[in-house]
Amino acid sequence: MALVVQKFGGTSVGTVERIQNVAHRVIATKRQGNQVIVVVSAMSGDTDRLLNLARQIDDRPERNERELDVLLASGEQVTIALLALAIESQGEKARSLLGHQVAIRTDRDHTRARILEIDKQRVQSALDEGRIVVVAGFQGVDEEGDLTTLGRGGSDTSAVAVAAGLRADVCDIFTDVDGIYTTDPNLCRTARKLDRISYDEMLELASLGAKVLQIRSVEFAKKYGIPIHVRSSFSDAEGTLVCREDEAMEKAIVSGVAYNKNEAKITMIGVPDRPGIAAQVFSAIAGKGIVVDMIIQNVSEEGLTDLTFTVPKDDFQRSMAIVHNLCTEIGAKDAVGDERIAKISIVGIGMRTHARVASRMFEALARENVNIMMISTSEIKISCVIAEKYTELAVRVLHDEFQLDRSAEEREYI
Amino acid sequence: MALVVQKFGGTSVGTVERIQNVAHRVIATKRQGNQVIVVVSAMSGDTDRLLNLARQIDDRPERNERELDVLLASGEQVTIALLALAIESQGEKARSLLGHQVAIRTDRDHTRARILEIDKQRVQSALDEGRIVVVAGFQGVDEEGDLTTLGRGGSDTSAVAVAAGLRADVCDIFTDVDGIYTTDPNLCRTARKLDRISYDEMLELASLGAKVLQIRSVEFAKKYGIPIHVRSSFSDAEGTLVCREDEAMEKAIVSGVAYNKNEAKITMIGVPDRPGIAAQVFSAIAGKGIVVDMIIQNVSEEGLTDLTFTVPKDDFQRSMAIVHNLCTEIGAKDAVGDERIAKISIVGIGMRTHARVASRMFEALARENVNIMMISTSEIKISCVIAEKYTELAVRVLHDEFQLDRSAEEREYI
Repeated sequence: MALVVQKFGGTSVGTVERIQNVAHRVIATKRQGNQVIVVVSAMSGDTDRLLNLARQIDDRPERNERELDVLLASGEQVTIALLALAIESQGEKARSLLGHQVAIRTDRDHTRARILEIDKQRVQSALDEGRIVVVAGFQGVDEEGDLTTLGRGGSDTSAVAVAAGLRADVCDIFTDVDGIYTTDPNLCRTARKLDRISYDEMLELASLGAKVLQIRSVEFAKKYGIPIHVRSSFSDAEGTLVCREDEAMEKAIVSGVAYNKNEAKITMIGVPDRPGIAAQVFSAIAGKGIVVDMIIQNVSEEGLTDLTFTVPKDDFQRSMAIVHNLCTEIGAKDAVGDERIAKISIVGIGMRTHARVASRMFEALARENVNIMMISTSEIKISCVIAEKYTELAVRVLHDEFQLDRSAEEREYI
Repeated sequence: MALVVQKFGGTSVGTVERIQNVAHRVIATKRQGNQVIVVVSAMSGDTDRLLNLARQIDDRPERNERELDVLLASGEQVTIALLALAIESQGEKARSLLGHQVAIRTDRDHTRARILEIDKQRVQSALDEGRIVVVAGFQGVDEEGDLTTLGRGGSDTSAVAVAAGLRADVCDIFTDVDGIYTTDPNLCRTARKLDRISYDEMLELASLGAKVLQIRSVEFAKKYGIPIHVRSSFSDAEGTLVCREDEAMEKAIVSGVAYNKNEAKITMIGVPDRPGIAAQVFSAIAGKGIVVDMIIQNVSEEGLTDLTFTVPKDDFQRSMAIVHNLCTEIGAKDAVGDERIAKISIVGIGMRTHARVASRMFEALARENVNIMMISTSEIKISCVIAEKYTELAVRVLHDEFQLDRSAEEREYI
């Protein structure tokens, strides 16, 4: 008998009829001989309704995160009760559990809390009674007994954490897409659904996966070795299994092409090249809560260097203001910014052992006259910053170059 | 510095604007130098919305009371968060607490649980921090950590229980009427608002008070000696204080006239008058969960007696079926029922020491040709069953007879 955790997002439980469908689905899983834990989000629209009420009371309810969490956590409470009712009315025993009842213990960082541990006792005893256990996603409880929430997409992490805590065999994440694709199918019509992908690749493909899966849940799954099956809540088709890497994955060399249009680029020109300057620059920016992604510093000429980095587009104006002050402080010549950029990445665990991947990427872009502004690499990812207008072109070119429209066995390169 | 508990019902927190008003009001109470605990219900309409969702899933969600409680308890969770936000946005510190966070411990009788005890520690420490504590009414937690609800009007009992647990000086119950009246003002335009009424009178006036105050909350208040101030949420006027009896109350002799049209009358004719018969009859009825109110048995003639009792109108048909079976079993002649009756009661702690009250009541009804079908008395109440069509007439006649339109000092009878 396997233990299966199944997570359904807000769209999948957005109406009474859909809740009935979810009940039908989890009952089918149970009747195939499994123990089942279901993790659900609030009904779609409910969180917005609650936030709207809060904003009518206080135009910045975020100032009071503790109370905002109490408010938002009521959404999943409704869903778990309705789903438990639906399961029982369809003839199986159910038991709903709120975050604090499980208990899903988190830190005290309201509205973006991190799960610290899961008590398995109460879920386990409900399973032992032959029940389908219905757990409220998105919410937890801190050491004071205050309710916390896990941030957007947090129910994914709830599901994986519960799966880890109970040592489940698999965690099914039902969503409105049918799996993880080699790239965004909206940009590239030959994008192909992946059967399997490693945790590390999934983490690097965050920008593709974030629409499907909260990235923190992948870290959790990797840590505890829980396979995540990303699949459609509207069909029975197999989706994509996010799991430990194996030899077959390595053969693929490149698994996917990701892009990110939400960053902006800032270059400080003529920065005095002396120890401590980089630290001074980036601690000033981090001090304002701005997260820097790529950083490039070239070799210096005549004691001066250029320093280029990317920040989220939303933080661009604030970052430029900080950087202009820094120029004066440290005696740099000038700072220039560019908001119209995109970051294109290819990801694959196979590239660790294949030297020619990077040059193929650069050549493919060059053939289309796409200029590369910045390059950054990790063990399983190569990212290039290019002009934003070339995003779609670059995605399609790289998808073709690495033959991602074919299965790994059918690819002919190398 | 006094400790004040203030309870606001669903109508009083039914819109964002009204929640702002409640915040304004409790802040005023705090700034008068009091410590304040607020107990709130779900926003009016919200409970019905949730029940409606449940009924779309299961036409009898009541079969699954545990999950129904999880569902319904989400309503107060929304209100306490919004009220805490409103209080803080108006400049005072607040802290919301759910039933299980307080903790309000109850038995396991879902949808109609009884409060067993209140932990004072968490409320007290929030008060000590100078906060207005916002408590979710209507809900509690059982020994298993499951959510429970207290039944319709349960927030009143939550408020009084919290007041008792924290030894509050007074429990204000804000409602959409401005106090307890000598009788239903809709039936009798001379009905007068009472300044004070004793716990025992309030309990006997249940049928008047039930629209205003859950009767269990009065039992709680009596047990712990907590004065309840029933008052309007739409004005600052004094309402009615429900409190320990005193001499002034005794002078009033009669405090109010109550009526109840929700009972039906059943008479078993020619019942063999032997020991154990009454026990057999009423245990058969109680065994079906039917609550019998009045019971009258007259002296017997020739070894046969008539046995009359009242049951809730909703249980009338089921009761008649049981009684017909019983007639055969015990050899009674017949059973007849009457659904078109009303029970009229006068209540007052002063009648304990005034002999002529009952006869005045009967004479007043006789003058209007209102036939009395049954009479039942307690130490502070006299009830008569009459034909339903005379209800309004009887209420007005008795209200006049005991001069309830005047204050106790101005009355001229006796």
